[in-house]
Amino acid sequence: MFRLKQELRIPGPVPVPANVLLASARPMINHRGVEFKHKLPQILERLKPVFFTKDTVLALTGSGTAAMEAAVANLVSPGDPVLVLVGGSFGQRWAELCQSYGADLHVVSYPWGTGVDPQAVKEALDLNPDIEVVFATHNESSTAVLNDIESIGEVVKNYPALLVVDAVSSLGGSPLETDSWGIDMVCAASQKCLMTPPGLAFVSVSQRARERMEGVTSPRYYLNLLTYEKMLAKGEPPFTPNLANFFALDEALDMIYEEGLDNMFIRHMLMRDMVRVGMEALELELLVLDKWASPTVTSVRPEGFDVVEFCQRLREQYGLELAGGQGKFTGEIFRIGHMGYATPLDMLTTLAAIECCLGRYGVATAPAGKLWNQWIKEN
Amino acid sequence: MFRLKQELRIPGPVPVPANVLLASARPMINHRGVEFKHKLPQILERLKPVFFTKDTVLALTGSGTAAMEAAVANLVSPGDPVLVLVGGSFGQRWAELCQSYGADLHVVSYPWGTGVDPQAVKEALDLNPDIEVVFATHNESSTAVLNDIESIGEVVKNYPALLVVDAVSSLGGSPLETDSWGIDMVCAASQKCLMTPPGLAFVSVSQRARERMEGVTSPRYYLNLLTYEKMLAKGEPPFTPNLANFFALDEALDMIYEEGLDNMFIRHMLMRDMVRVGMEALELELLVLDKWASPTVTSVRPEGFDVVEFCQRLREQYGLELAGGQGKFTGEIFRIGHMGYATPLDMLTTLAAIECCLGRYGVATAPAGKLWNQWIKEN
Repeated sequence: MFRLKQELRIPGPVPVPANVLLASARPMINHRGVEFKHKLPQILERLKPVFFTKDTVLALTGSGTAAMEAAVANLVSPGDPVLVLVGGSFGQRWAELCQSYGADLHVVSYPWGTGVDPQAVKEALDLNPDIEVVFATHNESSTAVLNDIESIGEVVKNYPALLVVDAVSSLGGSPLETDSWGIDMVCAASQKCLMTPPGLAFVSVSQRARERMEGVTSPRYYLNLLTYEKMLAKGEPPFTPNLANFFALDEALDMIYEEGLDNMFIRHMLMRDMVRVGMEALELELLVLDKWASPTVTSVRPEGFDVVEFCQRLREQYGLELAGGQGKFTGEIFRIGHMGYATPLDMLTTLAAIECCLGRYGVATAPAGKLWNQWIKEN
Repeated sequence: MFRLKQELRIPGPVPVPANVLLASARPMINHRGVEFKHKLPQILERLKPVFFTKDTVLALTGSGTAAMEAAVANLVSPGDPVLVLVGGSFGQRWAELCQSYGADLHVVSYPWGTGVDPQAVKEALDLNPDIEVVFATHNESSTAVLNDIESIGEVVKNYPALLVVDAVSSLGGSPLETDSWGIDMVCAASQKCLMTPPGLAFVSVSQRARERMEGVTSPRYYLNLLTYEKMLAKGEPPFTPNLANFFALDEALDMIYEEGLDNMFIRHMLMRDMVRVGMEALELELLVLDKWASPTVTSVRPEGFDVVEFCQRLREQYGLELAGGQGKFTGEIFRIGHMGYATPLDMLTTLAAIECCLGRYGVATAPAGKLWNQWIKEN
């Protein structure tokens, strides 16, 4: 039997364009040599518009969680009162990280599958006005919810607390206006909308965040962002970085700027809408209401069949790899990733495989295809 | 002018074989999918003979320093008495890490350019028998010294302390018999003798280390080795790993087993000896005595010319990239990396470029070439 071409439609790592993969396979260079001293600041500079910031963007060799831990370790001393917004696995990760560092943890919980209500954040801050840092999730990929960070930023602006946002699975796929929404740190990673292999994590740092870091007593060395800033002034990374990921990212940024950020956001919304009309046509229940629907991943809660067995059959017989549920949604939902190097045509492919696997033909692809054509006509 | 072929002869990152680079450029897969659940434990299993251990080897996405910090964060609670052996930048890094985590720090300092005297370690432990962990450096790449870890292990065995060894720049290039020398943790990285791009760090964990980790109170999440062990039991990484590095490492391990570990060690010693006879023939002073000479990097302290300018000229005019000095040896020494994907022929190339740059011909390559031929005849 022929080896199925694998369609990887999970919420990261995403398929990496062949030119980006090949760029990653360049021969090694001296990470403290002339070429990289030029390249490192240049690449970080090119990331700033993607982060909507004029301030610093730093790169760590690690996963998105390393970036999240860097935010906590650099902003939270033991006993500091913090507020964490939890409505899925990645909100929980913030809470676990803050607990690891001995924070005085306050939590706003919101139901999995919904977005956080900015009013609830306001109430929590009114109740605990001494909160020093608020940790939020932009795109909660465990449920496929996009939170309204702009409104949360509007709330937090009225309090002394800093605002830190996990944008690991949204940065580049959905606008996150770091500076104008008042976000002090944004955490991101290479293997999502940036179309690069996993291995690089990013943190943006506002002036307020920088000032706060100086006084934080939590132990940190590899994740000490002050060291990264100090070394970056010399054009160097503090530790040997994964050069291959930088080569790849440089190529991916060429593609990002060729498409344009606004067009990337529009493409992600189109893919979201195509998947959603497709699922509706198949009468498979969407977990998330339109107002919170993520542009990078869609979660589906079907009734009448076993989700785990369905995903396995999709993978083994049709070559389509979707993600199952996490945490309390394990075995209840499947998730379709549509971020980074993904196109409207990939959505039709995805829907077609799901239809074939269900033994229904054209039900989902027809409405999605019409949506695409309508979009082409209007743009 | 043609673009010089770059000869990267620094102590890491090392040149990566083209087949390993190409293996790293494979399409992405689901890091929680069937294939990686099979691959991850298999690759870690294949690393065990390289670590000379039957116990666990774990992989982190990060640099060698991440592995070192994992050792400290998982083994040291604030106030714990520890002993650090410091004779170069990487010994200092152990000390800085232990300080960051609030350890009760004891230090055995030994002169930069020499190896640590096991007797000095014994005296320090006699003076402070409550020391709980000893942190040592196998190959101090800042000076090009290989420490006698076997003898240090013999000493430490008589005390309750655990022994942790930084083998970042030696693992695979020089034998380090983890289990039989009584080493509880070995830290290593992908971009040195393992011939893989930077981005993966490794830690071996003995049973004693595992038991100690349970009670350690230092904050850690991304570097929590207990999480890595727990997830590995399910064949999964706790966080999205740099898949490309695993693809590459798998290919590099094929090459390592094809050559055989013993042959790798012999090759590294031959390269060390070729470089040393070459430098002696050129009457350039070797920093390190034979008994401590590293098989993976050689440091040279020439008199009569500017080292920084010399390295720059070598790079720009001859395409040979060497490393300068670090710390107190900045501007005083240059270092020749001969680790991983490096061959006796590369040593002749390196010596030839150095000779040309000095305007002397055949002085260094002749003795080194004779040494190589003699070795071929005898083997």
